[in-house]
Amino acid sequence: MIVTCNLTHTQLQNEQTEGRRLHFYDRGEEIPLVEQGVWQVYRGVAQLSQLSVNGEEILLGWAQPSTFFGMWLTHIESYQVKALSELYLKWYPLSEIEASPHLSHLMLTQVVRRMRQTEALLAIAGLRRVEERLQELLQLLKKELGQPVPEGTRLAVRLTHQNLANAIGTTRVTITRLLGDFQRQGIISLDSDRHMIVHH
Amino acid sequence: MIVTCNLTHTQLQNEQTEGRRLHFYDRGEEIPLVEQGVWQVYRGVAQLSQLSVNGEEILLGWAQPSTFFGMWLTHIESYQVKALSELYLKWYPLSEIEASPHLSHLMLTQVVRRMRQTEALLAIAGLRRVEERLQELLQLLKKELGQPVPEGTRLAVRLTHQNLANAIGTTRVTITRLLGDFQRQGIISLDSDRHMIVHH
Repeated sequence: MIVTCNLTHTQLQNEQTEGRRLHFYDRGEEIPLVEQGVWQVYRGVAQLSQLSVNGEEILLGWAQPSTFFGMWLTHIESYQVKALSELYLKWYPLSEIEASPHLSHLMLTQVVRRMRQTEALLAIAGLRRVEERLQELLQLLKKELGQPVPEGTRLAVRLTHQNLANAIGTTRVTITRLLGDFQRQGIISLDSDRHMIVHH
Repeated sequence: MIVTCNLTHTQLQNEQTEGRRLHFYDRGEEIPLVEQGVWQVYRGVAQLSQLSVNGEEILLGWAQPSTFFGMWLTHIESYQVKALSELYLKWYPLSEIEASPHLSHLMLTQVVRRMRQTEALLAIAGLRRVEERLQELLQLLKKELGQPVPEGTRLAVRLTHQNLANAIGTTRVTITRLLGDFQRQGIISLDSDRHMIVHH
């Protein structure tokens, strides 16, 4: 679950976290990736994906607060990371991780968390029926990007039908149809900000 | 690439690696998983998979030498690990990892490697055409389980057509047909032990 706090934009920019500057990216911006270090999410959510040779976007995961991402953590060519919300990141040079046992241990815990998420997405991709895949994906999203609300769990970011389609290897049209069914069955609803709520 | 050495069975059993006992499992055996620690592969290859509610096996990866696996590293229910070859494992209690910065750092490097493999499998699962998925899978297998031979790269373990089908969400029949095509096109061949060789 994501813990939110009510710092303003300016407060966040002034804040020194472990003496480390926060880098800000706006919703929709692509995050630059270089070999010599990794990013850690401080606030917000980023989307990790691959652009296939056919120009299709394949979703590889979400980076929520505390998650590390970067070229060191992938072998994927044409890896891309986009801000799904306002995004604050911290930068760690690889040399610093090598030199700090404390940082290694922190990073191990976080890479294990990402590992579990990626493995869960892989297990979902292996399911035969699309409806089953979407239902399992909603459970994973609840766990990874959820905030408790009275009716159930609200997803912290707004995901498009195309985002969801890319995550489970189906078309936008199929997602729209299935989410319509789920809404009628009372499994999900949308709040006034068009964030999805997965009901109890 | 897997580095092989020519220790005999008995030599291996007597060997104390960092004062740590080697646990032996025979090809086909299932590895017991408990919460309090993780396994590390010393020699051989294990297959990580999930048994879906419909009884289908979904392949989640391979653990080659130095790889860690165990309940701490997954959220998957009905996670199962099988020896794909004769398998020697070392056991690490979680408390020991917590206490040792050296071990944390070693494990970080290995979990990052597993993370990259899992992400690569996820990217393959997202490809539209089955033939493309199989071709990319062979490239990944070369990298992960390959040993150099004059004609190209030999896979260190024998994978069944069903294993390959489970890895890319298709049927055994389709794999058999496609591998037949690949053999006729000279992309792959089998050696006398029925290990696959992926040609240059």
